[in-house]
Amino acid sequence: MSRLGPQPEGPGPDARAVEAANAELYAAFEEGDLDRMEELWVGGPFADSAVCVHPGSPPLRGREEVLRSWTLLMANFPYVQVVLTDVDVSVAGDVAVVTCAENTLAGEGDREISFDYGGRVAVTNVFRRTEEGWRLWIHHGSPVLSDP
Amino acid sequence: MSRLGPQPEGPGPDARAVEAANAELYAAFEEGDLDRMEELWVGGPFADSAVCVHPGSPPLRGREEVLRSWTLLMANFPYVQVVLTDVDVSVAGDVAVVTCAENTLAGEGDREISFDYGGRVAVTNVFRRTEEGWRLWIHHGSPVLSDP
Repeated sequence: MSRLGPQPEGPGPDARAVEAANAELYAAFEEGDLDRMEELWVGGPFADSAVCVHPGSPPLRGREEVLRSWTLLMANFPYVQVVLTDVDVSVAGDVAVVTCAENTLAGEGDREISFDYGGRVAVTNVFRRTEEGWRLWIHHGSPVLSDP
Repeated sequence: MSRLGPQPEGPGPDARAVEAANAELYAAFEEGDLDRMEELWVGGPFADSAVCVHPGSPPLRGREEVLRSWTLLMANFPYVQVVLTDVDVSVAGDVAVVTCAENTLAGEGDREISFDYGGRVAVTNVFRRTEEGWRLWIHHGSPVLSDP
């Protein structure tokens, strides 16, 4: 990389760190790793304002309720693969927003299923900069029913 | 108000200002008032990172594309009523997040219609504090297909 010199068009270190934090959500989900999920989500002063909207569902508020939902999801879907497309990262001060499309293949028990809206979910993930790094504050996923 | 003294349990001035900004989105939409819509959305350094996800659609990025989508929506739905329920406001520094449910009744031309997912939309609205007040940075609406 250093031999190529600076690349002004590429993402900066903040954007790369946010993209890594974003990827961590799906890695933790695929692995069914609650510890990693707990580490990724905001705590402390941001815990109460954490938001999670799963596709087709009403909003969940607060770290505890949000993590409980992921625990249930991971228990119900032992086999999950998520391929991200259209990942777009913007950093604005100590807050960063990622939009992406989740393309999901999930299995329930022995049965391999895909979500009935074709597995494509439009996602907004919002991260806060903390002393421990970027932490997930808001996750909103919604089924894509039609292309524009 | 001052006669009652401080009310530690009630929302602070920031939360009230955010709730007013949130209501402004729906007032502007109902009125079909593009000027108010343009004033509400972030500009300047936040313009490029603005995000809007309409129910069932992929994300739109950037102030220009976002406002174009609202212009189209307002042209297509001359009669719209939105009743908000479950409004929850959290202020975390210079960023605030609102979750709410949009209960929408819309008319297209002479025909009164409701959205086919029953008119109920789960919403995350994220606002930034600017010198001009709270401005809408992210709007993500998604159909509620089932209750938890």
